[in-house]
Amino acid sequence: MTSLSAANREALKKTSTATLTTVLFKRGFRNVFIQGVFLLNRDGPRMVGEAFTLRYIPAREDLDQLGSFEGRGHPQREAIEACPPGNVLVMDARRDASAATGGDILMTRLMVRGVAGIVTDGGLRDSYTIEKLALPAYCAARSAPLNLVRHHAVDSQLPIGCGGVAVYPGDIVVGDPEGVVVIPAKIANEVAEEAAAQTLFEDWVEDKVKGGRSIFGLYPPSAETRAEFDAWRKKPR
Amino acid sequence: MTSLSAANREALKKTSTATLTTVLFKRGFRNVFIQGVFLLNRDGPRMVGEAFTLRYIPAREDLDQLGSFEGRGHPQREAIEACPPGNVLVMDARRDASAATGGDILMTRLMVRGVAGIVTDGGLRDSYTIEKLALPAYCAARSAPLNLVRHHAVDSQLPIGCGGVAVYPGDIVVGDPEGVVVIPAKIANEVAEEAAAQTLFEDWVEDKVKGGRSIFGLYPPSAETRAEFDAWRKKPR
Amino acid sequence: MTSLSAANREALKKTSTATLTTVLFKRGFRNVFIQGVFLLNRDGPRMVGEAFTLRYIPAREDLDQLGSFEGRGHPQREAIEACPPGNVLVMDARRDASAATGGDILMTRLMVRGVAGIVTDGGLRDSYTIEKLALPAYCAARSAPLNLVRHHAVDSQLPIGCGGVAVYPGDIVVGDPEGVVVIPAKIANEVAEEAAAQTLFEDWVEDKVKGGRSIFGLYPPSAETRAEFDAWRKKPR
Amino acid sequence: MTSLSAANREALKKTSTATLTTVLFKRGFRNVFIQGVFLLNRDGPRMVGEAFTLRYIPAREDLDQLGSFEGRGHPQREAIEACPPGNVLVMDARRDASAATGGDILMTRLMVRGVAGIVTDGGLRDSYTIEKLALPAYCAARSAPLNLVRHHAVDSQLPIGCGGVAVYPGDIVVGDPEGVVVIPAKIANEVAEEAAAQTLFEDWVEDKVKGGRSIFGLYPPSAETRAEFDAWRKKPR
Amino acid sequence: MTSLSAANREALKKTSTATLTTVLFKRGFRNVFIQGVFLLNRDGPRMVGEAFTLRYIPAREDLDQLGSFEGRGHPQREAIEACPPGNVLVMDARRDASAATGGDILMTRLMVRGVAGIVTDGGLRDSYTIEKLALPAYCAARSAPLNLVRHHAVDSQLPIGCGGVAVYPGDIVVGDPEGVVVIPAKIANEVAEEAAAQTLFEDWVEDKVKGGRSIFGLYPPSAETRAEFDAWRKKPR
Amino acid sequence: MTSLSAANREALKKTSTATLTTVLFKRGFRNVFIQGVFLLNRDGPRMVGEAFTLRYIPAREDLDQLGSFEGRGHPQREAIEACPPGNVLVMDARRDASAATGGDILMTRLMVRGVAGIVTDGGLRDSYTIEKLALPAYCAARSAPLNLVRHHAVDSQLPIGCGGVAVYPGDIVVGDPEGVVVIPAKIANEVAEEAAAQTLFEDWVEDKVKGGRSIFGLYPPSAETRAEFDAWRKKPR
Repeated sequence: MTSLSAANREALKKTSTATLTTVLFKRGFRNVFIQGVFLLNRDGPRMVGEAFTLRYIPAREDLDQLGSFEGRGHPQREAIEACPPGNVLVMDARRDASAATGGDILMTRLMVRGVAGIVTDGGLRDSYTIEKLALPAYCAARSAPLNLVRHHAVDSQLPIGCGGVAVYPGDIVVGDPEGVVVIPAKIANEVAEEAAAQTLFEDWVEDKVKGGRSIFGLYPPSAETRAEFDAWRKKPR
Repeated sequence: MTSLSAANREALKKTSTATLTTVLFKRGFRNVFIQGVFLLNRDGPRMVGEAFTLRYIPAREDLDQLGSFEGRGHPQREAIEACPPGNVLVMDARRDASAATGGDILMTRLMVRGVAGIVTDGGLRDSYTIEKLALPAYCAARSAPLNLVRHHAVDSQLPIGCGGVAVYPGDIVVGDPEGVVVIPAKIANEVAEEAAAQTLFEDWVEDKVKGGRSIFGLYPPSAETRAEFDAWRKKPR
Repeated sequence: MTSLSAANREALKKTSTATLTTVLFKRGFRNVFIQGVFLLNRDGPRMVGEAFTLRYIPAREDLDQLGSFEGRGHPQREAIEACPPGNVLVMDARRDASAATGGDILMTRLMVRGVAGIVTDGGLRDSYTIEKLALPAYCAARSAPLNLVRHHAVDSQLPIGCGGVAVYPGDIVVGDPEGVVVIPAKIANEVAEEAAAQTLFEDWVEDKVKGGRSIFGLYPPSAETRAEFDAWRKKPR
Repeated sequence: MTSLSAANREALKKTSTATLTTVLFKRGFRNVFIQGVFLLNRDGPRMVGEAFTLRYIPAREDLDQLGSFEGRGHPQREAIEACPPGNVLVMDARRDASAATGGDILMTRLMVRGVAGIVTDGGLRDSYTIEKLALPAYCAARSAPLNLVRHHAVDSQLPIGCGGVAVYPGDIVVGDPEGVVVIPAKIANEVAEEAAAQTLFEDWVEDKVKGGRSIFGLYPPSAETRAEFDAWRKKPR
Repeated sequence: MTSLSAANREALKKTSTATLTTVLFKRGFRNVFIQGVFLLNRDGPRMVGEAFTLRYIPAREDLDQLGSFEGRGHPQREAIEACPPGNVLVMDARRDASAATGGDILMTRLMVRGVAGIVTDGGLRDSYTIEKLALPAYCAARSAPLNLVRHHAVDSQLPIGCGGVAVYPGDIVVGDPEGVVVIPAKIANEVAEEAAAQTLFEDWVEDKVKGGRSIFGLYPPSAETRAEFDAWRKKPR
Repeated sequence: MTSLSAANREALKKTSTATLTTVLFKRGFRNVFIQGVFLLNRDGPRMVGEAFTLRYIPAREDLDQLGSFEGRGHPQREAIEACPPGNVLVMDARRDASAATGGDILMTRLMVRGVAGIVTDGGLRDSYTIEKLALPAYCAARSAPLNLVRHHAVDSQLPIGCGGVAVYPGDIVVGDPEGVVVIPAKIANEVAEEAAAQTLFEDWVEDKVKGGRSIFGLYPPSAETRAEFDAWRKKPR
């Protein structure tokens, strides 16, 4: 697997998920935006990192009791300690947010361990504490019930679905205040580069529009506009 | 079509959508509040204006490619430039917010052109930029994917549905931080006038309730309360 | 019915709904968190109080006209005046938030009367006014339409469902910024006590995690951790 | 309460729910068709009868155990024995069909007791046995789980909602293979009479259409068509 | 627009919608199956024909009264008389089946006029009469309420969405007992031809599987299997 | 893992899923009925067998092309050939039935191989052919689109969710015309035995009810009724 360069990792922190969907669409990817999740802590850092996956299935009353968390071996607790720094923990909770898939203590532990963020299509509990952590945390609902009433953590680092999108371990997961995009690992570098270029262009366009220019011939650009932008881009600033 | 007077346009900016639904209910209208949308920019101006409509159907892979935006003629781009200043652009996206129906560049253009606001029952992308514009923008979700993955802009200025409500071009669209109400054009002036009167009364009631008065006989008012209010209203202030 | 002690009432104001779901789960209760509601006014006081219930059924056009609110006897208006200070008014609106179940005037009256809060699985109107009141108010949506277009208030103080949870009059209803938990009346005191102890422990755990400690053996605690916590707890501070 | 005449009861058995919605619409009723239910036994008799209501709220683990059915006093069991012959048992299960609200033994008992039918917006279990009974039974799903996992029968003969429609005890409930319509008790006789006349006209129209006639001027009828129909109706047959 | 050949029209009557989705997928079309509709009359003829579209928006109380059907000009009634023989009437009801978009009289008129079928993502009323007509009729629900309570027919022969799929006037609409596929007009002939060939192959595969053969190397076929099939196909029968 | 005895396997074929949910409820299991699936072929055999699981995640355009089915190794094709005779193939399609998870050729292969049945919470295509096979097949919808447009088969024999229920490989899966129940493997024999006894009792009760007896004291039985049943059961027949 090609790894994401340090420069591109930084570049992706300045790229919007909107721009990324367009760059991925050009390569034939139509379903890359995790549906139905929102960011708890809008004042935190931007989220970029490799996907580390955790999968839940429905709970079963005989297995999912409080004792199951004790000692070692519970897949959720193991994942919290195993997710590498710089990675994003992505949870498949079958889009069921009627119970939590984590709370403030686990989220704090992820933050302290240097994890880049967390995404779940289930709920998060203690959400008003989590929203003050310096950890990007995306969930489908603020949901107090402990995971055992609905979810059973079963395994990690397998391909999963999250919010309707396929997530393979190692995919690059990017979050902004709008939501989360998943970039297939093998094209992450080229997507990052094209997205950075596209961001530069769109910022220039926004500037022109604020100045009163019509979108016709500007967005998307005509040949003249493209030349105008190229000239501007080469100007020393 | 009777046009909304300048005075009533200003009055509607001070009227709540809640009060408008009551005034419309008295005239037999039960379904006037656009369901499932929220305001992105709560610090912006209040929204009042004539509906300018845009309709999307589901995307089709052969037609909905990036090239379709080039040049002139794309219905979405044309609508952005055609919607008159003071009007509200209302989009029918079939209540499907899994993709966007516009982003920050188009919203900025609408703002610069003097459009009064925008309402869509689909998504908006670059939502955290849009929320800082001085343009009331209502959508069903923050949604990064470009419209082409789901939506095909097909025509404008036809009657549409938006959030389950009929919207005819020229209807008066009013938004507050709670949501959006659609007033049939032909009764917009009388509705505005009655709503202004009702607002005055409800502010007076709120004051009384804050002072400790029971709602019985007050809201709705008994004959005595009505007289008391009338007296107060006529008092010089 | 055992009544909640004053000390436990205060303790519950410092307890999270997340912790309460765990304490209730230990006693076999899996469905105690009202689904799909959110808090309008996050700066207000915490909500703890006995449930006072109000039930809506679907509206019927011949019965649900504006005149129905006049005089005495309308169940919604009666409930607003009857709900005792310190209680929480809980409304069953069949999880239909396409219309309101109350607005700013009624909410103000509740606040003035000393009611501890209000929970509805329908909508609230004038929500941007309500969110400034010192009254905890939970609803399923900001929804301008008056209740008559969808809801008919029919009776109060019967057992109801709210957000998928059974609510019996007198149950203890606790709200925090995450949502609302319903505690069966007869176990409210023991739940409050256990939750307070659990909160103390979790705050200590959070502190340890912030200091870099792994969750293994800590959360849930091993025998050693439990002893460590007990020693800490007994230390004079 | 005016009671439905024997002749009108028979007439309603030959009237479609479609025609009834039109007759009720003329009187201002727009929401009379129970949404989301279907008929299990299409070979059974047509259903007409007074509503006898039963209400469920969400189950609670401490109350809803198998022992609760023992002896007398369980509201569901009591309703099965109390619903008068000729009435229709209508159940409010909050449109949650993930568990049953009755099974074959209870349905057989209703049939033997001469009850006219049963409507629930929850599930029915043993549905493939029920579908062979001579008892019209409408439900939202075939659903095996016993009611205790989700539903708690709480009271009967109160106004309820069923499938989004208000049902007052004594309302006339009419079912055909398409579904179920609720007629307010006080207008049941006049609605039955107008529906019978409308049915006669529509059968005549259907005949004309089968013969090749255009619907213009026929449906709805012009003055000429109305005269033609009146002449036909008066002809001895 | 290329027109569908008579031979291909017949061929499509013997092709399954499943096979058509595969043939269209090869050409990049992923969204061609109308979601959420079912066939009322499974004993009727197979449906193939050009799309004739009709569009509904939400009803409005002042416009949608029974009088609106009178005389000429009502878009629904006009469409019933205008849809050419051999075409399929496709209705966009915004996937809202809580009211009907047609009933037995209109469906009978379509049948008599030689229309090839009808598809709506709303409801149909008098469904148990329609299911006996020799007219393929697909709907989202059996729904008694007249269209006026929810739907307003607004125009025809514009591009629409139906069950989440784009439908352009003239597209070829094919139905089998599983559902309905929409083929873009310009590729209808080539799709029909490839689908016929694929059907022949799949029938041969089904035969082999019934005889006990493994699917490996058979479905999809290896080079050997492909040769075997080609030999069989050329054999005189 | 205890294996299901041959006698209990046969007994379960005569047991209803309704009765099984009650027997499992007594042991604390509340969530055992797969939600949202129905039986395609009601004339086929009853379904009992060990769960063999297959898991789908969302499709991704670069991976999910027709070529992926070729040769060996595609998880869906491998599962079709690997599921042991007598087992039930249970598919986790994330409750998304907008595309198929199998069609007639694969279902025929399962039947020929002696598989006991198939359950998917996604769609099945060629459903009207499948419904004539002697293979119990449960799905969430008749859905023509090939799986590649939405689903990616990823692995088998892992614990999954299906229709909201946990399914572990080896669990006993029982289907009747109402739906499907999942019995944890370790208690399958005792559940089968208790369910058979309960079935005998309920058949006796049904007989009594048909004869006119009230349900009070009968269902559930009083001590007298229990004695009466025991006497009847011991009588030679």
